Amino acid sequence: MTLLVAMTGWHVEDWRERFQGLLPELPVAVLGEPFDRRAVHYVASWKHPEGSLAGLPNLAAIFSLGAGVDHLFADKRLPDVPIARVVDPDLTTRMSEYVVLHCLMLLRQQRRYDRQQLAKSWDDDRNQPAARSVRVGIMGLGELGLDAARKLQVMGFDVAGWSRSPKSVEGLPSFAGAEGMAAFLARTDILVSLLPLTPETRGVLNAELFAGLARDGRLGGPFLINAGRGGLQVEADIVAALEAGTLKGATLDVFESEPLPAESPLWSHPAVTVTPHNAAMSEPEAIATLIATQIRRLQAGEPLEHIVDPAKGY
Amino acid sequence: MTLLVAMTGWHVEDWRERFQGLLPELPVAVLGEPFDRRAVHYVASWKHPEGSLAGLPNLAAIFSLGAGVDHLFADKRLPDVPIARVVDPDLTTRMSEYVVLHCLMLLRQQRRYDRQQLAKSWDDDRNQPAARSVRVGIMGLGELGLDAARKLQVMGFDVAGWSRSPKSVEGLPSFAGAEGMAAFLARTDILVSLLPLTPETRGVLNAELFAGLARDGRLGGPFLINAGRGGLQVEADIVAALEAGTLKGATLDVFESEPLPAESPLWSHPAVTVTPHNAAMSEPEAIATLIATQIRRLQAGEPLEHIVDPAKGY
Ligand SMILES: NC(=O)c1ccc[n+]([C@@H]2O[C@H](COP(=O)([O-])OP(=O)(O)OC[C@H]3O[C@@H](n4cnc5c(N)ncnc54)[C@H](OP(=O)(O)O)[C@@H]3O)[C@@H](O)[C@H]2O)c1
Ligand SMILES: NC(=O)c1ccc[n+]([C@@H]2O[C@H](COP(=O)([O-])OP(=O)(O)OC[C@H]3O[C@@H](n4cnc5c(N)ncnc54)[C@H](OP(=O)(O)O)[C@@H]3O)[C@@H](O)[C@H]2O)c1
Repeated sequence: MTLLVAMTGWHVEDWRERFQGLLPELPVAVLGEPFDRRAVHYVASWKHPEGSLAGLPNLAAIFSLGAGVDHLFADKRLPDVPIARVVDPDLTTRMSEYVVLHCLMLLRQQRRYDRQQLAKSWDDDRNQPAARSVRVGIMGLGELGLDAARKLQVMGFDVAGWSRSPKSVEGLPSFAGAEGMAAFLARTDILVSLLPLTPETRGVLNAELFAGLARDGRLGGPFLINAGRGGLQVEADIVAALEAGTLKGATLDVFESEPLPAESPLWSHPAVTVTPHNAAMSEPEAIATLIATQIRRLQAGEPLEHIVDPAKGY
Repeated sequence: MTLLVAMTGWHVEDWRERFQGLLPELPVAVLGEPFDRRAVHYVASWKHPEGSLAGLPNLAAIFSLGAGVDHLFADKRLPDVPIARVVDPDLTTRMSEYVVLHCLMLLRQQRRYDRQQLAKSWDDDRNQPAARSVRVGIMGLGELGLDAARKLQVMGFDVAGWSRSPKSVEGLPSFAGAEGMAAFLARTDILVSLLPLTPETRGVLNAELFAGLARDGRLGGPFLINAGRGGLQVEADIVAALEAGTLKGATLDVFESEPLPAESPLWSHPAVTVTPHNAAMSEPEAIATLIATQIRRLQAGEPLEHIVDPAKGY
């Protein structure tokens, strides 16, 4: 029984050591070095190369090293075994830090005061709206969306959510599916995307959606915050909507192509805030510990937690 | 029975109309126009001129149009009558927006990512501390300090407080008075000042205090956020502490002299964020309504609320 670590972009040796430390009884192999394919029972993956997990006859489970699993389903030859993702309370806390920070920056016009400071200009806005008169709409009411919603409510915002299946969360108005979309957008001044990337959600943040956002809000136009995945957004549409005034600003942590290419107009647009896909990162120790716990569950005959549904893609 | 509106810097006509609308039965006079001094029972003041409230023989109460009352006690000839201040839940919410926003900007290194965006640089910090490993210390655990503390805790920060009298607030470690100061500072990575300005607190944010802040924190040095009053801080000491590294940064809403003079080095210091004394403003309608309610209480023989203690100065 071997755990295979399969990744690109990350430092595989550190991960081998982490897992070996946590699971001393289990041999740990890494992709790129020779290993016995029949011995592999578990895979821990972050963006493994296409097809590299095919031909593992005894594979029992794949663990995503991140909260998102779009990197797994991008592999057309992914083995048909149970897939579990990481659900880490610490990562959730960090995502909510990001969402609350950027909603407050928009509410409190921090960019205006930054520009004023540069100009040494002391100038106040006596019509600053209260949080309760600013409507935040959260797309995706999963682990991340629900925590962000609750914290935005504590800060006073008027929050609603949108998800695939209808939800009933005490005190949180919510909308579901294509039918619920128009009404959800029409009451949204700040749109926060915390969706997973799936065939259904790819490109959902597009011109048509922006046109449906509230235009009568106290912030003077709708804003977009995307901390889900870059594939959710059509960047040409974001730039056009900013030019046309359909969007007043955008805060983006994720991009169609990452790192964001130097020629992207998003870098220098005055109404855009760019962060380098770090809205919420787990500590590697925490991820490895969660996966080690899952492997122990399997070995004790207990069911996996946080299994994703390949049909839905998340 | 007349209500006298006495202010400098604000638009007195708007206030006269507001009060007249809310208290149609009560004559409203404004300082600067002729009025019968013996008729004045109530004063609503924002920075009234020194001595202008002397010689009002039937004065029963003074209402501060703001949360702070330092502007009243600055008048050496202030009449010896009950003084009430504004306690407005909406203002409290706004102050907490400001405090949480700026603590999160420091936690999440927003200034670093702003600089990186300018340079089109995609560069992540894998050692970003979690909120729970950052210690916020709040000076002043009154209306504003307690609400900010609770909301910072919701965001995950490790919060403690400091006040004049000992407090016991569930889940909030707190320190009091001169005896408690050193221990409080030693566990503080982000110092948030929400103190009133009194003879005791004037200049408290000085070199000696900065030297007592935690130097072992995960943010790499202590930060100061002052949203109380400018008179609390010694700006020369702040600038020197930033140069010496005793402070890593400062977010200041209030200043020794306001508007902040163009020649102040604070405007252009790269580690300083300046906002134009607008951390928390009440809507004028809300303030006027609160004062009208107080006047109705007095007229119904009920006691005033939110009376300040001239001996303490707040
Ligand atoms: N930027 C970063 O640093 C970062 C870090 C971590 C995660 N993320 C991203 O955040 C995503 C969300 O994470 P999570 O843990 O909250 O996921 P989750 O618990 O699986 O929740 C996903 C939510 O999205 C909704 N959803 C999915 N497909 C939908 C569709 N077609 N239409 C409407 N709603 C749909 C789901 O609806 P139901 O409730 O009806 O199922 C659910 O509410 C991850 O997939 C990842 O891409 C980004
Ligand atoms: N920047 C802005 O836009 C803005 C807006 C509104 C208000 N403010 C400022 O915020 C201040 C605080 O407002 P608040 O409503 O929270 O006041 P508050 O309810 O009166 O609370 C004041 C707090 O400060 C503490 N304190 C006073 N003197 C002290 C001393 N010498 N040593 C230690 N602690 C001391 C008090 O201790 P005890 O609990 O022991 O009494 C109390 O906890 C106002 O006075 C005003 O100056 C600024």
